[in-house]
Amino acid sequence: MEGSMFSERIQRLSGSLIREILAAAQRPGVISFAGGLPAADRLPELDWHAAPRALAQYGTSEGEPGLRAKLAAQVSALGLPCAAEQVLVLTGSQQTLDLAAKLFVDPGTPVLVEQPTYLAALQVFRLFGADCLGVPLTPRGIDLAAFEARLQARRPALAYLIPTFQNPSGARYDEATRDAVAALLDRYEVPLLEDEPYRELSFDGKTATPIAARLNKAPWIYTGTLSKVLAPGLRDAFLVASPELFPYLVKLKQAADLHSCRHAQWQAEQWLGSERLAEHVDRLIGFYRERRDTMQAALERHFADLADWNTPEGGLFFWLRLKRRVDTRTLLPAALEADVAFMPGEPFFAEPDDGIGHLRLNFSHAPDARIDEGIARLAAILRAGGA
Amino acid sequence: MEGSMFSERIQRLSGSLIREILAAAQRPGVISFAGGLPAADRLPELDWHAAPRALAQYGTSEGEPGLRAKLAAQVSALGLPCAAEQVLVLTGSQQTLDLAAKLFVDPGTPVLVEQPTYLAALQVFRLFGADCLGVPLTPRGIDLAAFEARLQARRPALAYLIPTFQNPSGARYDEATRDAVAALLDRYEVPLLEDEPYRELSFDGKTATPIAARLNKAPWIYTGTLSKVLAPGLRDAFLVASPELFPYLVKLKQAADLHSCRHAQWQAEQWLGSERLAEHVDRLIGFYRERRDTMQAALERHFADLADWNTPEGGLFFWLRLKRRVDTRTLLPAALEADVAFMPGEPFFAEPDDGIGHLRLNFSHAPDARIDEGIARLAAILRAGGA
Repeated sequence: MEGSMFSERIQRLSGSLIREILAAAQRPGVISFAGGLPAADRLPELDWHAAPRALAQYGTSEGEPGLRAKLAAQVSALGLPCAAEQVLVLTGSQQTLDLAAKLFVDPGTPVLVEQPTYLAALQVFRLFGADCLGVPLTPRGIDLAAFEARLQARRPALAYLIPTFQNPSGARYDEATRDAVAALLDRYEVPLLEDEPYRELSFDGKTATPIAARLNKAPWIYTGTLSKVLAPGLRDAFLVASPELFPYLVKLKQAADLHSCRHAQWQAEQWLGSERLAEHVDRLIGFYRERRDTMQAALERHFADLADWNTPEGGLFFWLRLKRRVDTRTLLPAALEADVAFMPGEPFFAEPDDGIGHLRLNFSHAPDARIDEGIARLAAILRAGGA
Repeated sequence: MEGSMFSERIQRLSGSLIREILAAAQRPGVISFAGGLPAADRLPELDWHAAPRALAQYGTSEGEPGLRAKLAAQVSALGLPCAAEQVLVLTGSQQTLDLAAKLFVDPGTPVLVEQPTYLAALQVFRLFGADCLGVPLTPRGIDLAAFEARLQARRPALAYLIPTFQNPSGARYDEATRDAVAALLDRYEVPLLEDEPYRELSFDGKTATPIAARLNKAPWIYTGTLSKVLAPGLRDAFLVASPELFPYLVKLKQAADLHSCRHAQWQAEQWLGSERLAEHVDRLIGFYRERRDTMQAALERHFADLADWNTPEGGLFFWLRLKRRVDTRTLLPAALEADVAFMPGEPFFAEPDDGIGHLRLNFSHAPDARIDEGIARLAAILRAGGA
């Protein structure tokens, strides 16, 4: 600890590992499976010529009325009925994590998370002092017996779930699990934070109603982003919340940054609900499905004896479980030395030691022609490292 | 308190008064002196046609390299030598308050503030549990004896100062006060947060080196924004920090929203350091100076027997001290009823009861032709209310 100059939470401030990996991954020549970046050559052309001059003025903390209406329509179409007044526009869905942590988390507050879960969510909840309680995942969703046991043993202030193409595991909750999770959250009256950045990137065209829509009693926040389907550089994202939470979230948003960039909001409004966006997402899905297939083939070639995995039906990641329990964090320097980057799986676990021998591989960003080479290099490093 | 569902800090979450005033002030027909909005017809035309497609991709938490370099040059030109690597691009300078509160403030942490000070800063510091210690202001800056007494009695974790055209008081620290404040912060080793949104809006052309540049030992954060000179809707703002603070602030920014909108950053980069921006700011200053003069004349006409004030040499506000001690919060409903909005002064004080009988009047937003009428209406309401 750097001494008493800082707040108590600063001793829990992390983030350097990912920052270092991503920085290293941007070196020319590195084949990167580390981040979750869209393919650079699949970014849309944004047309700004009709942006109104009036956008230069201050806006409202809630967001642009037209964008809120379109987001409400989109969320309602998923089966989660929602009015424009329930939509809060944000700067990245990362901001949902910040606002939710402020709303629910004090030092020592129990927060239920999937095991593994989104690394940056763990970081934010912990920064605010959360005691993150991991519940194992299956490919069909969270382990229901373990989930109920956790709810019973110590009522968490919040359950953080990523039910569709979960990051990092790729898991997709099936209908029965969604219903059961909603019933349990209702029974124990535990608020839900449902995070769905990858929902639209479905390779088999299947979709499922959000868990939030299945709740009768528990408060909820549902959050999504345009970063995976349009342009992450804009930082367009949103949350929708049940009425007992929404007013607090608006005030917390106002305290955080007053409001999000109005020009970025206007740009999002031009795309949302349009034929143009539907076509763009269709092309994107086809493109990412091909890369998924390329990586699947490469893994079968080079990793069959090293790891087990499920072929992801959406999202941007393969999630590998090594047959031999090697801490993949120790292999990172050698990988970067060989100009290939990956994301160690251990930090995605509330208790990293529970996750020894996992790694996450992104298939959207590295050029198709280099995927096999990168996977081969990675396999060689794992073998040399004892995996 | 809504019960144990929320974090402990939520009982300190405020903000509804301002939100209500600003919402009411936007009703058609209302003459608003309440907010701090630029004049709508003075917003610049933004040219987007050359925005690179690559901006659609994720960016870095620190901000766009080109923008950071230009901001570093601008800050260095003020006399605060600064490298691009010390600049963090933000979503509104409000975000500086959020990040600084996260870095320094636990429940009970003493934070030194001017009395009065920026209302939204009080709200953020309090949200994180700060014990805000007010030190009186004079037109030349903070009261030095009271300042030192505060530093001596209970060492604050942070001193939050707005030395140039302070919001709400309009005070401008003179050279001697800036030097003395820096020497005291050095002596007591108290970190400085120096907030300068209004620096460029100087009606007499005078300027002064930031206090941060006068420190030899104390850590510091210096923050500025393009919202007052370019386009608040873009949310372009920044902080510069001393090396022992900067790495923490970057990680806190990453945890808050990964990074700010890249298109807004690109737009700022096109303007910063340009002849075009210099000309725009010159015109803006001329325009605001005229409105300042119009309001000064109106106040002399209608308020001479009601209040005392100093004519502001920059910024966007008059700060009135009523001759009779009336709580201006109680007058707000009658004012809004009469279609005139103002900002009660009491909430700008760490202890609102210390500030009974103050109000803030913005002169940048209401049309010049309606200022006299609005001030006359306000005077009538004050008289009716006992002022």
